[in-house]
Amino acid sequence: MKKKVVVALGHKALGTTFPEQQTAVKFSAGVLADLVEEGCQLIITHSNAPQVGMIHTAMNEFAKFHETYGAPMSICSAMSQGYIGYDIQNSLRTELLKRGIYKTVTTVITQVTVDPYDESFYHPIKVIGRYLTEEEAKAEEKKGNYVVEEPGKGFRRIVASPKPLDIVEIDAINTLVDAGHIVIACGGGGIPVLKQGSVLKGAGAVIEKDLVSGRLADMTNADLLMILTNEEFVNIHYNTDEPIPLEHMTPAEALFHIENNEFGTNKMLPKIEASLHFVSQKPGRRAIITSIDKAKDAYLGKTGTVIS
Amino acid sequence: MKKKVVVALGHKALGTTFPEQQTAVKFSAGVLADLVEEGCQLIITHSNAPQVGMIHTAMNEFAKFHETYGAPMSICSAMSQGYIGYDIQNSLRTELLKRGIYKTVTTVITQVTVDPYDESFYHPIKVIGRYLTEEEAKAEEKKGNYVVEEPGKGFRRIVASPKPLDIVEIDAINTLVDAGHIVIACGGGGIPVLKQGSVLKGAGAVIEKDLVSGRLADMTNADLLMILTNEEFVNIHYNTDEPIPLEHMTPAEALFHIENNEFGTNKMLPKIEASLHFVSQKPGRRAIITSIDKAKDAYLGKTGTVIS
Repeated sequence: MKKKVVVALGHKALGTTFPEQQTAVKFSAGVLADLVEEGCQLIITHSNAPQVGMIHTAMNEFAKFHETYGAPMSICSAMSQGYIGYDIQNSLRTELLKRGIYKTVTTVITQVTVDPYDESFYHPIKVIGRYLTEEEAKAEEKKGNYVVEEPGKGFRRIVASPKPLDIVEIDAINTLVDAGHIVIACGGGGIPVLKQGSVLKGAGAVIEKDLVSGRLADMTNADLLMILTNEEFVNIHYNTDEPIPLEHMTPAEALFHIENNEFGTNKMLPKIEASLHFVSQKPGRRAIITSIDKAKDAYLGKTGTVIS
Repeated sequence: MKKKVVVALGHKALGTTFPEQQTAVKFSAGVLADLVEEGCQLIITHSNAPQVGMIHTAMNEFAKFHETYGAPMSICSAMSQGYIGYDIQNSLRTELLKRGIYKTVTTVITQVTVDPYDESFYHPIKVIGRYLTEEEAKAEEKKGNYVVEEPGKGFRRIVASPKPLDIVEIDAINTLVDAGHIVIACGGGGIPVLKQGSVLKGAGAVIEKDLVSGRLADMTNADLLMILTNEEFVNIHYNTDEPIPLEHMTPAEALFHIENNEFGTNKMLPKIEASLHFVSQKPGRRAIITSIDKAKDAYLGKTGTVIS
């Protein structure tokens, strides 16, 4: 039996600019192909922060200049899913063929519902786009958007980062996975949509991709969630002189550390929360947080932080 | 038994600007939902001309302004698939729910191989992006790109429109269709890629979406190909005082009219070629070319040009 594994790729797996992304994705394809060779049935998700920012800025500068309509965040998110998905499916297909494995790798454009009353809508935190002048910042605020000032640097638009609820295209994802296809889904956290009766309305928000990876692993009933990042281990006493790397946490221990604020950085926190969400829904599940370079070793139980 | 139907949506089904597209896609969703209610198992494909042009221009103006890397056509094509696919799957899902039908509508990001020796690479014809100054045109030519002058208006970049060969993600598309999902695939003609060993290299080209719809209908083994456009019938003696609308053509008749150049416009020609390709591969197949407003009537045999 193949193990069903959801892999969440972060910024390091993708890079920032087009040429950087090309190199980074080739490397990531090697890592993913290693896991396929180990017998994993992969479901891949990924971040999109620099890419969706670039798309959002480019589309809206263009709109301003030509006095035409700008692109809402939901559309920019869909564009970034198409573009990054294409890049990963193209590179992974090649990497597998080189190893004599023929498998279709497919990107499914994915919507993810969020709660309109999610408190994050009142406290937006995700920075998007370039620095704005004071005048531009005021114009954004007039449109009902939030901006924040970074002293000495200018203003940035910030959007909400609501919690993911439901993955709208989950049935299609599961159909492909059950047939043995490699699927790329929920890119950039998914296109955030608000349920209004039978309508799904695009939301001006960015869902945290780590949290979506936990939902995706749960809703595909995966055996394992692997969140690949920059660091080999989750550390407690992070940002002190003596950080302590953890090889294993039970959900109870993870909760204890969260309550005691021991992970310090808010980049690691959603990864741990996603892992907790996933492993708590059903016995026997496992989550691993490690660096992308160590993915195979971590899969083989040699390194990384395991939550189970 | 449900009929497997490939529907190709043209420019009229999508509009040009964001608000135009919103209205157009809502209307198109109604047309598609009518076909689902008639018992069709839908596979949807669509054009992307204004959208990919806008994305290409926006991304590359942005790159010039910020002195960063521009987006190649293949990436712009992937972005347009993500964005238009999201729009259609979102609207169609809602329209079906309103009629009490629950069905997953899913966009599959699709690559389509083209022949590097396709003669179109030596005679590019597809215009992309905005008007260029003479200076900008010369810079494009230096990069190996083709430009064409439109007297009095300026220069435009033109790219090749090679013939589609293989649909790379066809196995995933068929898996979804066989499981009863509605699939959106090969948007904008697919992302054109050149096969170089195990590598698929993005090509600076745009594949004619009508021709891809014929390949898609063939490779999904559809019963019917419906190409929805502006005109209710294919006309011979087009652009004369007395055009003659055709209710039916056999493949032999269609070939005869093509050879005698009786369709006049090059917009109708690829639609007829795609239909011919599809119906010629296997007995019993049918293609219909009609206007989007008449889709249901045409499906019921009341109007449109049938090729069988």
